[in-house]
Amino acid sequence: MPTLLILSSNPDEYKQLIKSAQLPDLEFTEDPEDCDLVLGEPQLIWEMLPHLPNLKWVQAIYAGVERLMDPALRRDYTLTNARGVFGELMSEYVFGYLLLHEKKIFERFRAQQAKQWDRAESGVLRGKTIGLLGVGSIGSHLAGTAKHFGMSVHGFTRESEASADIDVYFHAPDLLQFGEGLDYLVSVLPRTDDTNKIVNASLFDAMPSHAIFINVGRGNAVDESALVMALNEGKIAAAVLDVTEKEPLPDNHPFWTTPNLLLSFHTSAISYPENIVRLFAENYYLFIEGKPLKFQVDFERGY
Amino acid sequence: MPTLLILSSNPDEYKQLIKSAQLPDLEFTEDPEDCDLVLGEPQLIWEMLPHLPNLKWVQAIYAGVERLMDPALRRDYTLTNARGVFGELMSEYVFGYLLLHEKKIFERFRAQQAKQWDRAESGVLRGKTIGLLGVGSIGSHLAGTAKHFGMSVHGFTRESEASADIDVYFHAPDLLQFGEGLDYLVSVLPRTDDTNKIVNASLFDAMPSHAIFINVGRGNAVDESALVMALNEGKIAAAVLDVTEKEPLPDNHPFWTTPNLLLSFHTSAISYPENIVRLFAENYYLFIEGKPLKFQVDFERGY
Repeated sequence: MPTLLILSSNPDEYKQLIKSAQLPDLEFTEDPEDCDLVLGEPQLIWEMLPHLPNLKWVQAIYAGVERLMDPALRRDYTLTNARGVFGELMSEYVFGYLLLHEKKIFERFRAQQAKQWDRAESGVLRGKTIGLLGVGSIGSHLAGTAKHFGMSVHGFTRESEASADIDVYFHAPDLLQFGEGLDYLVSVLPRTDDTNKIVNASLFDAMPSHAIFINVGRGNAVDESALVMALNEGKIAAAVLDVTEKEPLPDNHPFWTTPNLLLSFHTSAISYPENIVRLFAENYYLFIEGKPLKFQVDFERGY
Repeated sequence: MPTLLILSSNPDEYKQLIKSAQLPDLEFTEDPEDCDLVLGEPQLIWEMLPHLPNLKWVQAIYAGVERLMDPALRRDYTLTNARGVFGELMSEYVFGYLLLHEKKIFERFRAQQAKQWDRAESGVLRGKTIGLLGVGSIGSHLAGTAKHFGMSVHGFTRESEASADIDVYFHAPDLLQFGEGLDYLVSVLPRTDDTNKIVNASLFDAMPSHAIFINVGRGNAVDESALVMALNEGKIAAAVLDVTEKEPLPDNHPFWTTPNLLLSFHTSAISYPENIVRLFAENYYLFIEGKPLKFQVDFERGY
C-alpha cells in the first residue's frame, strides 16, 4: 500500500483534501519509517530526508525546491514540484505592478491628497515589449497575458522554445542584446548555479532608462548592489521585487529605502492546497500505474 | 469636393495624419462656411455648430458626445463618435486598479516604509465576479480581459446581449439582483437621461461589503452623496472614479478625502490621434460612397 507522510504547516487541510479525492489504496502515516510517499514543504522535507528509509516519491508543494538540490543530499527518490499552478497568480501580480506604473496610480493618489486635478497622461501596455528571463510554465503564462494586452514578448532561455506566445527567443551569449530592446524585464528564474547574478550591472547598462524590472523568481538571480546603483543612477526607472537574496530582508538592507524600488515580501504566488492536491492526485495515479510522473525535478539542472 | 474643418486643440497633428492617409478628393479648410465635414472635440463642435451652413457629417474624437445631445441643438447632420478604440485602454485602467486592491499594493508600500516584512495574503481575480453596467464596445473589451483572468462576467444592459464573454445578462428591473452577486462593479455608461444616478444607495445596499466600484463611464451615473455614505459606512469596500459629475472636482467636494476612494482625473482613456484618424478614414470611404457610416450616434438614445 502506498503510504503518505504530509510535511506541512497545515497537514490537516491537506489530509482532508486528499481524503476527498478518494485516491485508491492510499494510506496515511505520521511515522517517517512507514512512508514511501511525502507531500510537503521543501524545508520540512529537507529536515526529514535522512529519516525516510522507504522513500520513493516526494511531491513538493512549492515551485522552488533549491533546499533539496545540495549534492550532498540523497537523490534516490523521485522529486516532483508544483508547476502549472502559479502562472495565473504570477500574471496577476506582474501585470498589477506594470499597470500601477503605467497608470501612475501612486502619483494620482498623491495628487488627490494634495487636491490637485492631475491630468498627466497615462502610459499603456499595448505596443510595449516585455522580456521574460525563463520561459517555463510561469513564463508562458505571463507571455499569454502580455499578448492579451497587445504587447511584444521576448524570451531568454537556455533551450526551451515551446511557448506560442513568445515572439522572439534569445539565448546566451545574447543577454545584453535581449536587455536592450525591453520596456519591462521579468525574471521567473529558479535558484540554480547558472542563474546567480544573471541580472547585473551590464544588463542594467544595456536596458533602456525607462525600463522596469520585476523579480518573481528567486533573489539569487539579481546582483543586489548593482540594482541599487542602477536605480540610484537612473539606469532603469523602477524595480519590483517579490523575492530577495535574504528573506526576510535584513533591517539594514538598502532595498527598504532605494528610490523607485517596491517590495512585496514573497507574496506574489502562494500554494493553494486545492491546486496542489489536484496535482498530487494526478501524479498519484501515474505513480500507482508505474508511469513517469509530471513535473519531475532534474537534480543535475536544479529545476 | 468633401471639405474638412478640424476643431481640435492639436489640429496640425490631425491634419498631418489625415494627409498621410491620402484620402481621395479630401480638401481642408479653416473657414466654417466652406466645410461639409468636421472632425473634432465635442465642446469645440458645440461652439461652432450654428456657424456651419453646409454641414453633413461630424466625426467626434471622443466617445462622450453628450454636449451635442441637447434637443435645442440642430440634428440635421450625421454624428459619429469614437468607439472601438477605448476598450483596450479601459481594460488596462480597470484591471490595474482591481489588481492594486487584490495585491494590496498600497499596504505593501506602507509596510516597506515601516520596514515591516508584511506577508498578508494577497487576493486573486480568478474566480471573482465582475459586473458591467453597459456592455457596448468598451464593456465587451473589459469582459474579454475578465475572462482572460478567469473571472465570471455579469452584464447589465437595456437590450444588447451581443458579447460572447458575458456569462449572465441582467435587465431592468433586476438591478439590485445584479448588484448582489458582484465582487466588482464597473460602470461604462454614457451620460443620458436614463443613466442618471443608476448607481445609488439601493445598489450599494445590495452589493457585498467587500465589493469595489469603478466608474469609467460618466459621473452622472453615480449618486455622489450615496457613494460617500456607502464608503463611510463600509457598505462597499472601495471606489475608483475616473469621472465625476463636475470636472475638475470642486475643492470642497468630499470625494477628495473620502476613505477608500481613489480619483484619477479623467485619464483612463485618451484619444490617440492615430486611432481616431484610422476611424475617420474608414468612415470617409463609406461617406464618399454614400454608405451608412460606422458608430453613428442616435440623437434620441443619446449614444
